[in-house]
Amino acid sequence: MKIVVDGMGGDNAPVSTVEGVVKAIDEYGIDIIITGDKEVLEKEFAKYTFDEKKLEIVHTNEVIENEDKPVKAVRSKKDSSMVVAFDLVRQGKASAVISAGNTGAILAAGLFVIKRVKGIDRPCICSAIPNVKGGMTLLSDSGANADCKPKNLCEFAGMSDIYAKKVLNIENPRVAVLNIGLEEGKGNDLVKKSYDMIKEMDLNFIGNVESREVINSFTDIIVCDGFTGNILLKATEGVAMSMFSLLKKSFISSFRSKIGAILLKSQLKGLKGMLDYSEYGGAPLLGVAGGVIKAHGSSDSKAIKNAINQGIKFAEGNVVEEIEKFAKSLKKEESVKGKEK
Amino acid sequence: MKIVVDGMGGDNAPVSTVEGVVKAIDEYGIDIIITGDKEVLEKEFAKYTFDEKKLEIVHTNEVIENEDKPVKAVRSKKDSSMVVAFDLVRQGKASAVISAGNTGAILAAGLFVIKRVKGIDRPCICSAIPNVKGGMTLLSDSGANADCKPKNLCEFAGMSDIYAKKVLNIENPRVAVLNIGLEEGKGNDLVKKSYDMIKEMDLNFIGNVESREVINSFTDIIVCDGFTGNILLKATEGVAMSMFSLLKKSFISSFRSKIGAILLKSQLKGLKGMLDYSEYGGAPLLGVAGGVIKAHGSSDSKAIKNAINQGIKFAEGNVVEEIEKFAKSLKKEESVKGKEK
Repeated sequence: MKIVVDGMGGDNAPVSTVEGVVKAIDEYGIDIIITGDKEVLEKEFAKYTFDEKKLEIVHTNEVIENEDKPVKAVRSKKDSSMVVAFDLVRQGKASAVISAGNTGAILAAGLFVIKRVKGIDRPCICSAIPNVKGGMTLLSDSGANADCKPKNLCEFAGMSDIYAKKVLNIENPRVAVLNIGLEEGKGNDLVKKSYDMIKEMDLNFIGNVESREVINSFTDIIVCDGFTGNILLKATEGVAMSMFSLLKKSFISSFRSKIGAILLKSQLKGLKGMLDYSEYGGAPLLGVAGGVIKAHGSSDSKAIKNAINQGIKFAEGNVVEEIEKFAKSLKKEESVKGKEK
Repeated sequence: MKIVVDGMGGDNAPVSTVEGVVKAIDEYGIDIIITGDKEVLEKEFAKYTFDEKKLEIVHTNEVIENEDKPVKAVRSKKDSSMVVAFDLVRQGKASAVISAGNTGAILAAGLFVIKRVKGIDRPCICSAIPNVKGGMTLLSDSGANADCKPKNLCEFAGMSDIYAKKVLNIENPRVAVLNIGLEEGKGNDLVKKSYDMIKEMDLNFIGNVESREVINSFTDIIVCDGFTGNILLKATEGVAMSMFSLLKKSFISSFRSKIGAILLKSQLKGLKGMLDYSEYGGAPLLGVAGGVIKAHGSSDSKAIKNAINQGIKFAEGNVVEEIEKFAKSLKKEESVKGKEK
């Protein structure tokens, strides 16, 4: 098995990316291909001692920047580190791709280079929100599809269920619909219809979940459209981070409070770690015909290493094959329902 | 001017409600009508010394419970403390109504008892989210309308602008659309179209705002559909509250940390106060033909008193009249546009 890493994507590339790759080779003994400017990358790798036989550098001339328009960039920058990396997955030369680059471009490269699994209408990004029990809750879709149909939410539910089982080893993942009330029949048109359809699927469906419970580990998977999911994801992250900076500020406001903060250092650090998004590697793009892990734009080497590990588990768990089976079952069901009518 | 208070609505009614009314009479010298079981209320009021000439108790036989179906309850419980209170506003016997009762029922009573301002398609609930600068950011709609059209978001923007100016004394309120990116053209169909329309309105429109900035005071008013708004509101509240309980738990984990927490007591209390939703009284229902302030279900006496103060400012600021003017200008614009076509 080989994993390909986009060597130039992300705020801390290639420095943290290279360090993360070295750590992954050391820890997992995995074969890695990295794409990017060969000279720059070689200089970075020269800093480390590791099993160099495990590494292949594929030289590319271009980089997709954060400011680039995603679709246009993927179509025009054919020799970018991102597009070449995705193309290696399409060709079957790598089992999964890791990129910390432009999120929109990752989505576009997934759709246009690797392409969708047949029968899946809308691939989704499945992000992990840390919860207060020290685990994580999956949020699908967290931003790939701003406008959705009920059918899409069913796909998100089924694909995330597979991911939770195969990559996160959750035995019987609880699936819930994000809503503004717990009772059946609540919400907007989209969630009401989606609720009725997901209820009929072969899932451990537990009903609606409210956003105030998101970090309380009420469910393993939260299903929603990508607009609402992105609002929720960024709100959770924003409030947590703002509260930490408020705490920090108030703790240095007096001598007394400074002493207090020193005594609480390990507790505060533990809490921050628990709610720190970078701990969790990356988010998979589910529903394309290959493993795609989107690492956080500001990933450090640990986050890159964790994302590579996710890519390995994704490939080992045959997630794509499982999603293909799921897509076929969806199609069969639709044709049965069509005949019933 | 008179304010009417629903004496039986809310988790802490009538105890906290009565105490809040007494505080408001003391502090603002305002005339108050309270609805509810006369015997029960009189017993509560007997605990306090205050200017009794300022108080009128209107006896009612029924109570709308949190479990009641809102529309059905408002239609069938004609002698409930809530419906009678709303009807006093409709009759012009009170300038504004305060209720901490069933949110859906408050909305239904606003629509069916007081009724909409002519020309306003969808009244909205305008909630205040505390921000890290110690102020608040308005969120419209925060839950009244799960499905919206762009036209509705324009109404929310215009009505909230009036409320911010007349009640909160914000001179030139900044208005932003809640979105999943800052650039124009981002988001789902609804926000893209709404953006284009709000941009043309006579407002201090600053563009899109992302949910991660919600508690950072980037804008004074955030406009969105009620489904997304409710998700955002509850996520913000949920994360803040969960973090406090996590902090609390970790702070009592060792002797050392307990000492630390004691030294930081005033800082932690200040932070909690800053982010405490009950400090901010209630949320107005904008677009109905009378003042309606929805207090938090778990309001204490201070929150009730603050909500009464909001009701006073709402009436003094002629918010309903200003919204009527705004609705007429919307209608005029529509008919001009109709002729242009």
